[in-house]
Amino acid sequence: MLRKLVALAVTAALFGSGLGSTDALAETVSTERHKVTVSTLADKLEKPWGMAFLPAGDLLITEKSGTLRRVTLSGDISSPLSGVPAVVDRSQGGLLDIAVDPNFGDNQYVYLSYSEADPQGGEGNSTAVMRAKLTANGLTNGKVIFRGAPKYKSGAHFGSRLVFAPDGHLFITLGDRYSAMNDAQTLDNHHGKVVRIKPDGSVPSDNPFVGKQGALPEIWSFGHRNVQGAAIHPTTGKLWTVEHGPKGGDEINIPEAGHNYGWPEATYGVDYDGSIISDKTHVEGTVQPHYYWVPSIATSNMIFYTGDKFPAWKGDLLVAALKGSQVARLDLDGDRVMHEETLFEEAVTQRIRDIEQGPDGYIYLITDDRNGQLIQIKPAQ
Amino acid sequence: MLRKLVALAVTAALFGSGLGSTDALAETVSTERHKVTVSTLADKLEKPWGMAFLPAGDLLITEKSGTLRRVTLSGDISSPLSGVPAVVDRSQGGLLDIAVDPNFGDNQYVYLSYSEADPQGGEGNSTAVMRAKLTANGLTNGKVIFRGAPKYKSGAHFGSRLVFAPDGHLFITLGDRYSAMNDAQTLDNHHGKVVRIKPDGSVPSDNPFVGKQGALPEIWSFGHRNVQGAAIHPTTGKLWTVEHGPKGGDEINIPEAGHNYGWPEATYGVDYDGSIISDKTHVEGTVQPHYYWVPSIATSNMIFYTGDKFPAWKGDLLVAALKGSQVARLDLDGDRVMHEETLFEEAVTQRIRDIEQGPDGYIYLITDDRNGQLIQIKPAQ
Ligand SMILES: [Ca+2]
Ligand SMILES: [Ca+2]
Repeated sequence: MLRKLVALAVTAALFGSGLGSTDALAETVSTERHKVTVSTLADKLEKPWGMAFLPAGDLLITEKSGTLRRVTLSGDISSPLSGVPAVVDRSQGGLLDIAVDPNFGDNQYVYLSYSEADPQGGEGNSTAVMRAKLTANGLTNGKVIFRGAPKYKSGAHFGSRLVFAPDGHLFITLGDRYSAMNDAQTLDNHHGKVVRIKPDGSVPSDNPFVGKQGALPEIWSFGHRNVQGAAIHPTTGKLWTVEHGPKGGDEINIPEAGHNYGWPEATYGVDYDGSIISDKTHVEGTVQPHYYWVPSIATSNMIFYTGDKFPAWKGDLLVAALKGSQVARLDLDGDRVMHEETLFEEAVTQRIRDIEQGPDGYIYLITDDRNGQLIQIKPAQ
Repeated sequence: MLRKLVALAVTAALFGSGLGSTDALAETVSTERHKVTVSTLADKLEKPWGMAFLPAGDLLITEKSGTLRRVTLSGDISSPLSGVPAVVDRSQGGLLDIAVDPNFGDNQYVYLSYSEADPQGGEGNSTAVMRAKLTANGLTNGKVIFRGAPKYKSGAHFGSRLVFAPDGHLFITLGDRYSAMNDAQTLDNHHGKVVRIKPDGSVPSDNPFVGKQGALPEIWSFGHRNVQGAAIHPTTGKLWTVEHGPKGGDEINIPEAGHNYGWPEATYGVDYDGSIISDKTHVEGTVQPHYYWVPSIATSNMIFYTGDKFPAWKGDLLVAALKGSQVARLDLDGDRVMHEETLFEEAVTQRIRDIEQGPDGYIYLITDDRNGQLIQIKPAQ
């Protein structure tokens, strides 16, 4: 109930129109199984990175430079919300993903991932996660529940997608920080890892490396490159992730507790001159990708579509991508990919940074641009 | 030993050059994992349809109009071999696939599939399979070991790929004859079926419908459209097939005994105007495809690559296609497809009708044209 009051208050106090003088632009697109409209609801977001729906249907959207905004489906964009942590807005770093607590109605918690400077004043940085309460004016009671280690001087590969498992645990996906890629194979650091914690930052006792000498207990899986997409499979409840490959070799994985996903030992990245490359694709003790792309599509986030608005897409995995401004629709039979369709390559013109399913069953995209867009996908009439 | 003598005799008596005045043309092609050369060994085959390697390394190649030729890897094409059955060379019908007995060294048996006229003089035809002995001059002792029922008046969808299972049984893939598509769902006919027989034409007692009232006992699986590709998985020993979809929806299946693969009730074929189509993709009691293509690539035959010449392709499924003159390379992890690469789209310009792996570990293609080609794929130096 509080949430609803908050929404009304924010609407009155903070919103301006996000679409300037133009109305929402709608384009009709034919796909294999549905004819859809692609509409731009707002186009004045500044490099938006992550979005999350509040139960009432408004969106919280991060902008990489460090602002968090509340956005309505009418395209109204609020002023920056207060209480957001300071971020290192450099290269790939900044304010990144946002997640809403599964019990938001009771606790009003939201979670932000971001690149955090070294509190000791060193030159390094790392991915961190803050939990805070959403109020009418912004965030309060912010608490850092995860801080990547070590702090490392790099502007690249922060990972940072946040997803809740059905059992209430929070998965945080991380990157290898590029020049620290070899760290992805050792357990004394967070580079190239997927992490699993409780929402208060404590470590679940059933994590795979709890009590293992020299291993950080919050690690769930390792050997990843830069995991920027994650979603929970709607029927198995398992975590699926998607990561950027080096040059080709973007991967979907289904990370299991304690498993090694190979990077940088094993990869499907290729040299495009067509010679046999030395990089190995199979390395003993590492798990093959579930599915991969060559050349890279530069994967961002992904969702399993579970709504009723697109019946033929129900259960499909929708993987958003920066390259080609596309969404790869993967038709699944159980876990197995049996078909890939490329969606929206023409209708969307900016790099797609995040994809979500709304409470209304429609599909929403945000695009990575100084005039970034919020896009809505609906069935065509 | 006889085989070797036969080869020498045929070489002396029958061969002319298949490539006219030109030398083999070789083009170097870069792919994701291997740089290869694509060479035309012969280009005077008339609408070749099926090919099979003899143990010594020569090929037997069928031509749709009803001729069978022996072809060397030097590009020498023999005169037509004698003893080939009469075929109905009309529309998609004609002399189709050829298989060499796994014990050819002992028995010299080869198997031909073809469209056979009604022996009673009716207007119908059906796919039939003849077994015969290969001698120096041609085939002798021909015996029809399978005759599709009913004879039906249609020029389309004969299926007709022949593959031997590791246990010595012969799989024959069939088509729905197009206008008889609904027959694919009933067991009293061969339309839209995969059939499993012994090499002498008798019915294995462990076939799924043996003793079932109203069912033809040679049926292995049903609900297929037009299965023109088949191969045995090298480690599981299971049959894999590929069939043409109606308009989109070409399918790979792993046909299990007695299972229903859905056609024409369930299909991933689409209307390209983008409206939701009425065709169902999921029907209770039918098996989903293992993998499918939309739009269609018009699949012909396929192989699992098991040689040592292309190490990074070992275990991959190579699916040849008429459309785009391409080979789809499917990278497998176990049975699961984890990646598709399109090969040879530029280097091959004619529709690819058959694909085989040679005893030398190279890959061979034949193309469907009045000046059809025999093409060899080798690693580039
Ligand atoms: Ca990997
Ligand atoms: Ca089917």
